[in-house]
Parts: sequence; C-alpha cells; structure tokens
Amino acid sequence: MSQKLTRYLPILDWGRSYNEVALSNDLMAAVIVTIMLIPQSLAYALLAGLPPEAGLYASIVPIILYAIFGTSRALAVGPVAVVSLMTAAALGHIADQGTMGYAVAALTLAFLSGAILLAMGVFKLGFLANFLSHPVIAGFITASGVIIAASQIKHILGISASGENLIELLHSIVVHLGGTNWITLIIGVSATAFLFWVRKGLKPFLKSKGVSAGAADVATKAGPVAAVVLTTVVVWLFGLSDHGVRIVGAVPQSLPPLTMPDFSFDLMGALLLPAILISVIGFVESISVAQTLAAKKRQRIDPDQELIGLGTANLGAAFTGGFPVTGGFSRSVVNFDAGAETPAAGAFTAVGLAIAALALTPLVFFLPQATLAATIIVAVLSLVDFSILKKAWGYSKADFAAVLATMLVTLGSGVELGVTCGVVLSIFLHLYKTTKPHIAEVGLVPSTEHFRNINRHKVETDPAILTLRIDESLYFANARFLEDYIYDRLAGDETIKHVVLMCSAINEIDFSALESLEAINARLRDMGIKLHLSEVKGPVMDRLQKHHFIADLTGQVFLSQHAAYDALKNSAT
Amino acid sequence: MSQKLTRYLPILDWGRSYNEVALSNDLMAAVIVTIMLIPQSLAYALLAGLPPEAGLYASIVPIILYAIFGTSRALAVGPVAVVSLMTAAALGHIADQGTMGYAVAALTLAFLSGAILLAMGVFKLGFLANFLSHPVIAGFITASGVIIAASQIKHILGISASGENLIELLHSIVVHLGGTNWITLIIGVSATAFLFWVRKGLKPFLKSKGVSAGAADVATKAGPVAAVVLTTVVVWLFGLSDHGVRIVGAVPQSLPPLTMPDFSFDLMGALLLPAILISVIGFVESISVAQTLAAKKRQRIDPDQELIGLGTANLGAAFTGGFPVTGGFSRSVVNFDAGAETPAAGAFTAVGLAIAALALTPLVFFLPQATLAATIIVAVLSLVDFSILKKAWGYSKADFAAVLATMLVTLGSGVELGVTCGVVLSIFLHLYKTTKPHIAEVGLVPSTEHFRNINRHKVETDPAILTLRIDESLYFANARFLEDYIYDRLAGDETIKHVVLMCSAINEIDFSALESLEAINARLRDMGIKLHLSEVKGPVMDRLQKHHFIADLTGQVFLSQHAAYDALKNSAT
Repeated sequence: MSQKLTRYLPILDWGRSYNEVALSNDLMAAVIVTIMLIPQSLAYALLAGLPPEAGLYASIVPIILYAIFGTSRALAVGPVAVVSLMTAAALGHIADQGTMGYAVAALTLAFLSGAILLAMGVFKLGFLANFLSHPVIAGFITASGVIIAASQIKHILGISASGENLIELLHSIVVHLGGTNWITLIIGVSATAFLFWVRKGLKPFLKSKGVSAGAADVATKAGPVAAVVLTTVVVWLFGLSDHGVRIVGAVPQSLPPLTMPDFSFDLMGALLLPAILISVIGFVESISVAQTLAAKKRQRIDPDQELIGLGTANLGAAFTGGFPVTGGFSRSVVNFDAGAETPAAGAFTAVGLAIAALALTPLVFFLPQATLAATIIVAVLSLVDFSILKKAWGYSKADFAAVLATMLVTLGSGVELGVTCGVVLSIFLHLYKTTKPHIAEVGLVPSTEHFRNINRHKVETDPAILTLRIDESLYFANARFLEDYIYDRLAGDETIKHVVLMCSAINEIDFSALESLEAINARLRDMGIKLHLSEVKGPVMDRLQKHHFIADLTGQVFLSQHAAYDALKNSAT
Repeated sequence: MSQKLTRYLPILDWGRSYNEVALSNDLMAAVIVTIMLIPQSLAYALLAGLPPEAGLYASIVPIILYAIFGTSRALAVGPVAVVSLMTAAALGHIADQGTMGYAVAALTLAFLSGAILLAMGVFKLGFLANFLSHPVIAGFITASGVIIAASQIKHILGISASGENLIELLHSIVVHLGGTNWITLIIGVSATAFLFWVRKGLKPFLKSKGVSAGAADVATKAGPVAAVVLTTVVVWLFGLSDHGVRIVGAVPQSLPPLTMPDFSFDLMGALLLPAILISVIGFVESISVAQTLAAKKRQRIDPDQELIGLGTANLGAAFTGGFPVTGGFSRSVVNFDAGAETPAAGAFTAVGLAIAALALTPLVFFLPQATLAATIIVAVLSLVDFSILKKAWGYSKADFAAVLATMLVTLGSGVELGVTCGVVLSIFLHLYKTTKPHIAEVGLVPSTEHFRNINRHKVETDPAILTLRIDESLYFANARFLEDYIYDRLAGDETIKHVVLMCSAINEIDFSALESLEAINARLRDMGIKLHLSEVKGPVMDRLQKHHFIADLTGQVFLSQHAAYDALKNSAT
C-alpha cells in the first residue's frame, strides 16, 4: 500500500530523506531560476496573446503541483515557447486577443489539456507519444521556432501584424511596415543584438578577463534580466512610452487568482483537438528534457506518472489564471545546472514568483514589449536547427520525407496541421516499408552453422532446397506479397523439392498471414514440394500451435536452420 | 515494345493463340452465364435502387472492356451484391430512388470508381488494398450480407421500408408491417424456400434419381431462372399484379444507351469518399476471386493490371447507363466451372445480354419483385459466415477485435463506417503490438551454434554477457521502449560487462531508433559496459554504415551470435 502510494505521490519518496544540504542546494537553484523566469513568463504570456501576469500565474501553482506528483527531480514546469504558440493558434479561432473570452478560453484549454494528460496517465497511454518520431519532433520544433521568431518581429518594429503561418505573418508584416516606430526598432534591435552577444560572446570574453567559469555562466543566464532592467530604465528616463514605444504597463499586484474555466459544450468541442495536440507535444517535450536530465544522475523517470504530474499542473493552471504549461527545456537545464536536487527547488521557485507577482509587478510598468520579443526571439532561434534535414537525408529517405513534410506544412499551414501531417506520414511510410518486405535466399556460411544471404556472402546451398529468410513480420499488409514471391521464385525451377521459411525475423503471424501460409502449403503440396519452417520464435510458435496449420504442414518445423539444412540435405540426396 | 504492349493489353497474349477448342468452350460457358445473369442483373439493379435495365447495361460494356484489359481468364465483371448495397448507401444521401438525379449520380459514382481504380493501377497502388485484412473483409462481407438480406424483406412482404443499417431497416419494417400484401408474401416465401432447396437439396435428390453430377450441377444453376419463369407465369395467368403484387413492369428494349455522368464539383466531392471505398472493396473482392480461380489452373494475376481492367470496366459502366461494377464471386465461379478458357467467354456473355436487353425484356414484365428479392436473399446468405469470429478468437485477440468491430459498426452504422473502422482498428492494433516488442534473453543451445530464449530452452550463458534478441524492427514507436528495457535490466546487476544485441529479427532501424541506440551506447560506456551487435542483416547494416554510430560503438559487430559469444566469453574470463 505504502509502496503504491509512493508510486503515485513521488514526494513521499524524496521528502522522507530531505536534509539540510538538499535544502540549501534547492534554495540556491530556486533564486537563480526565479530571476530567469520573471521576464520569460511575461514574454510567453505575450506570445500566447494573454496579459503578462498570466505568465507568472501559470508558473506558480503548476510548479507546486508538479513537485508533488512529478517524478523528475529537476524539471521546471511553466509556459514554454511552442505550447504558448499552439495556445495562441488554438484560441485565435475562438476569440480576439485581449478580450475576456480569450482569457477564459485559455483556462478551458489548460483544463482540457490537464484532463487529457491525467487520463493518459491513469490509463497508461504514455506510449502514444512514441508515435511522434524524433525527426518529426525536430522538424516541428524548428519550424515552430521560425514561426515564433517571425511572430515577434511586429513587437520589434512596433507595428500590428498577425497570421498563423509564416506566409501570413510575413505578408502582414510587409503590409504594416510603413507604421514602424523607429525608437521601438532601435530598442528591439539593440536588445536582440545584446542578448545574442550574451549567449555567444559573453562567456569567452569574461573567461579571457580571468573570470571563473561558474561566474561567467551566471552572468550569461542573467543576460535577459540585464536587458529588461536596462531598457526599462531607458524608457522610463526618457519618457519613450509617450513616443509610441509600447510598454507592458500596469500589471495587477496579486497572488494567482481563483478562476473558473468555461465548461460550455461548444467551446470544449472546438478546443478538444488543439488540446490533444498541445497535450501530446507538451508531454513529448517535457519527457525528453526530464529523461535527459535524469540520465545524467542515473535517476529514473516514470512516463505514466509524468503524465499525471503534468496533468495536475495544467489543471492547476486552469483554476489559477494561467494557460497550458509543460516542462520547459531552458528553465529545467538552468534549474539542474544551478544544483536543484529535489522538486522542492520548484516549490521555492513558486514562492519566489509569488512574491514577484505580489510585489514586483510595478517595476515592469515601463518594460518595453520589444525587449520581451527580443528575449523570445533569441530563446527560440536556439531551438531552430535545420541540420536534421541533412542528417535524416543521409540516413533514410523516409525519415527525411517525414521531417520535410512536417516543416513545410508547419511553416505553410500552421502548427496543428504540421504535426498531424508528420505523424500520419511517418506511420504510413513505416507501414509502406513493411508491405514489400526484404526476402533473402540464404545458404550456409562454410564451417559454421550460420546462414546468410547468397547474394552477399559466400555460402553453401543445395539445389533441391530453397531457403527463404523473410525479413518482416507477416501480417495482413504483406501476406499476399509472400505468396506472390514464392510462386514467382518456383516458376520454372523443377529441381526444388523443399522450401524452408527461415522465421528468425518473423515476430508475428496474424490471421491473414496464416491463411496465406495455408494457401502456400496447399499449393506447394500440389506441386510436390514440401514446406518447412525453421527458427520459429517462441511467441509465434505458441500461437501457431493453436491452429491446425502445423498439423497440416507438409514438412517439419526445425529448431534451427542448420538442423533443417542437415536433415533435408540428407533426405534429398 | 511489343512485350510492354502485351502487359497492358493482355488480349494480345491470349488472342494470338485463340483456337476452335477455346472458342467452343467459351461459347458454352457464355450461354450458361448469360442465362444466370439475366435475373441476377435485374436483382442487383433493384438492390442498388436503380431501374432493372441498369443491371443489364452494367453487365454488357464493362464485361467487354475487362476482356480487353483484365488479366484473369475466368473473372466475370458486373453488378455484385456488396457493391450494389454500397451504391445504394452512397446515393441515398444525394437523391431519392427512382429520380433522374439518382440514376445520373450512379453514373458519376461509376465514373469516379473507374478513375480511382485506373489511377491506382497506373501508379501501382494495388498494395493499398492489402491494408484490408482477411478478418476485416470476412467481417464486412458477413455483416453486409445480413444488411442486404434485411433490405430485401420489404419486397417479400410487399411493403415500403428503408434504412442504412440493420437497426433502421428492422425498425422501418416493423412500422410498415401492417401493409403486408399476402399474395406477395406467399410468392416471396415460396420462391425463397424453393431457391434454398435448389441450393441445398436438389443435387442430392437428382443424384439419388440417377442423374449425372454434371447435369445435376446445371439444374442447380438454373434454379433462379426456373423461379423467375414460374412466378412470372403465375402472376401473368392469375392477373396478380392487379392485386397489389409489385412487378418489374416495362423495361425498355434497347442496347446500352450512351450516357453522360454529372461532373459537377459538388456531386463529385460528395461521392468521392464512397467511391474510394467502393473501389477498394470492389478490387479486393474481385482480386480474391481472380486469384482463387487462377491458382486452380496455375495462371498468374497481375494486381496492377487488374486495377486497370476494373477501372476501364467502371468507366464503361459510367457512359452506358450502368453503375459501379466489379468481378463477382458466383458468376465467375459459374463461368469457370462451365469451362471458360479466355476472356472471350465474357465478350460472348456480353453479346448474349445485349440480345436479352434488345429482345427479351417484355418477358420479364410480370416478373414479381419478390422473386428478385428471393434470389438476392439466397445469394447473399451464402456469404454470411459468422464462424470467422470463432476462428479469429481462437488464433488472435487482435484479429478478433478487428472482425467484431467491423461487424458491429457495419450492422449498426452502415457499410462505409464499418469498413473504415475495421481498417483503422487493425492498423492501430498492429502498430500497438510493435510498440512493446518481445525481447528475449538468449543463450547457447548446447552442442550447437544456435541461441534461444533462456526461459524456454536449456541453454548455456555467461554472467558477464547479456545477450538480448529484440523481436521487432526498431522504429520511432518502440525506440524508447528498448532504452527503458536495457536500463531496467542492467540496474543492480554489476557482473555484466558486455551487452550484445542480437539483431536477427530487426528488419529496420529508423532515425529515431538510431538515436536511441546512440544514447544506449553512450550510457553503457559511462557504466563501463560495452555494446555489441550480432547478426545484423545486410540492408540494415548498409544503412548503419552511412552513419557514425558504428564507428562510435564501444564494442564490435559480429556476423553471428555464436562468433560474438565465442569472442566475448574468452575476453571476459
């Protein structure tokens, strides 16, 4: 009972052995992450089309809930770039940004995501996320990064523009280009350039000045905060907001409010599909980060429990003024690098953000939106990596096709269609490959008991024995292919007296394939040829024995191909 | 060039060697099939909701076109039960039966089917039909048979009733039961009973009377014609059509007319999905029959050319007053049994039917619709076979689930949703099985070089060597599973120094799985354990060598598992 409870409440596991060392490490990590999260949370709220405080709220209660239910020691939950973009895309169909309906729909979306994740966790459906292949994810993240960066250009220019895909966005930007606010542009470009330099050039520069690696790291992480402080002070000092520079403005000083999603049937129906996609994408992103970090410390992640952790976090976001959240890559890495030992670090971060929401929001009144856009652009462009195209091309054309389709459709038609296309195409291509399986004619590698392809290896064969190794499970999609292959191979070859199917690569024989095998057996019987099987694996044999096929087989079932060859060679001569 | 032409025009092949013997055999078969097809064609037109002559027209030009382009020597093309039912279901959404719009929509549906089949043939997409597994087809045919039989009950009762699925049909029949015409009922029940008896009891009866088997066979085939003649004469003699018995009535005396389908965008859009389903189902039914008959005479069927043959047949139906057609089971078997040697038999049948359409239609004026309904009921009930449920249950629960779902959804929601559900579910279940592959720990079978599962066989192992045989291709859906499996297996086992992945059952390693293998290799390196591969198949190795994984591998790639065990056993001790 207690063990089961620990499984569902991982906090009981690490909480028991919590000590002073862990506490001080967790506190230190929490301070660093809090400072980093304040501008990031505001920025992602902006990206999702929500008021800035929603970003803070989405980082407080969800972090605490994940700390209780999640299994990763270092994962930091909150708004992330891709999910924020998907949130904006989903809500764009429902209501206009800035309206009450939009904010309430965001709560509903978080609620649906939470419910879906929780259900997947309870019913152990985490494996469904595996249908998103690595190349599809990589293609999707890269394309999303490009779209997110493009969506922020308007803030850098100080204009209005909108669009769900790259073409719409760029077109809208060009149309509105005449309205560019030059002061905003200078601030935005400076902030972007500064942040890029911090990311790429600051560390080597500090090191060359004799600063320790650790201190240089901290300085790099503090870059966005420095940009925020500097540009806020400049706007405030010179009164630039009177010259058209858009600022964050008044943010309520408040703890996360209690909020209620809209449970109307119509809204839930309209948001269901986006919520499924957000849940799955968010889960995949989160679990990848969690597993990467856990592997470094030889810890284990339980995917189904992760679903429960993320599910409760999203439900928390739904009832406290947030929007869909998941485990973020950059914040989790910072948390991990800063020395977080347990999920308590997350809880302390939540306390830090709560203090910020309560006391520090007046300080961001003059923060220019262009600075937030700059932090988003610099963050997401680090996710953009077109090299996956080259890597996939070099390894497998099918994987390449899946990446390319995902990228093009995401850029051209938006995130929802893009990821759906990628998944459907990669499943189809996988199935397609299995419809025409590789079939090798094999012979004995001399002075071994090993059988290999006669076209690739120098092997011994017997003209009366045809041994075929079928390199695929036999199931409905390829059952007929094997029949055709065997009949074609036998046509005109009168010397063959035995056909041996070497089943070492057959992992399943379904009912359709079984009927094909029966047909082959009957047809070969008519031709005076015996059909044998070799190296049938345990689970496959178990199933075959439930059926009369084995009894009807004209030949035998051999444990190994060598035994088959030995026995038939003697009988044939 | 000439060979290529023969591939696309099979008539050039068999036409060249056509002789007197083949001619007389083909003529004899044509006479028998023509007699059988006259009532059948009228009946299937009734089932499709079309005027009776449409059934004759659909059997004339399509047969000739198939004779030119098809590859089966015995297949008889025309209206068949399941496709007629699907036609009625598709057109039911578009127009009311008996209207001009309905008949024109039938032409459009035939045109779309023809175009789809032709395109599939030209682009060699015949393999797509393989995604209909045998159990799904069996379940679908059985459920369709039940629906078709139920849809004919109204003709037996002489009432009006309609519905797309079993529940709607039965409900509608019960509602209208009060309007039963007793004379019609007597005719219908008598005809049904007579036809059942002909099918089951006539042959044994005649044989017991000393009639030869061949003559008894012919008499059995002539049963429906006898029923048609008898009931027509009775209705005519006693003037029963004046007492509410519905008759076929006036059928135009004409060769197939030239007709033009409606190519409007809206109609084509509405019929596209049904047309795809009709094409695929029709193709599957046709190719199964063709292959069964070809196998008996050691002939070959070319599936892609079959698509072209069926495609042109449907295009022919579209422009000559027909509706979707395909190769039918019963008519083809009759054709084959009657001795048809070449597709010329089909052409002669077409001539016979053309004569019937031109000269004999006045003879069916008094033919009661109840008799046609009886021939349909008896024909389709022979297709109904619920034993597939039991067979599938005994062999595989996944196949059983697919059959059951197909049957229930077809009966409950109609043919289109039923077959779609079956296909989607069987693909999902197939994929699901591959997400959690069977992984066997293997050891050496003593005094052989063969390695088998340590849990099933008495084998020799070395505690420093962990050999895992993965019984599945590695791809995105199961890449993570292998990682988890290996880490779990190694946890707490300090003696293992070598992990060997025996790849005899791995038929593909996609990019996602490759990244997982890289992760495993790196993780094991950190743990001081070497990763080796054995029995990697040619095509898989070709691909791996394009990537730096093999160079980064901490261990070696062995040709055989025995070589791996030998080498590592010595190095470990």
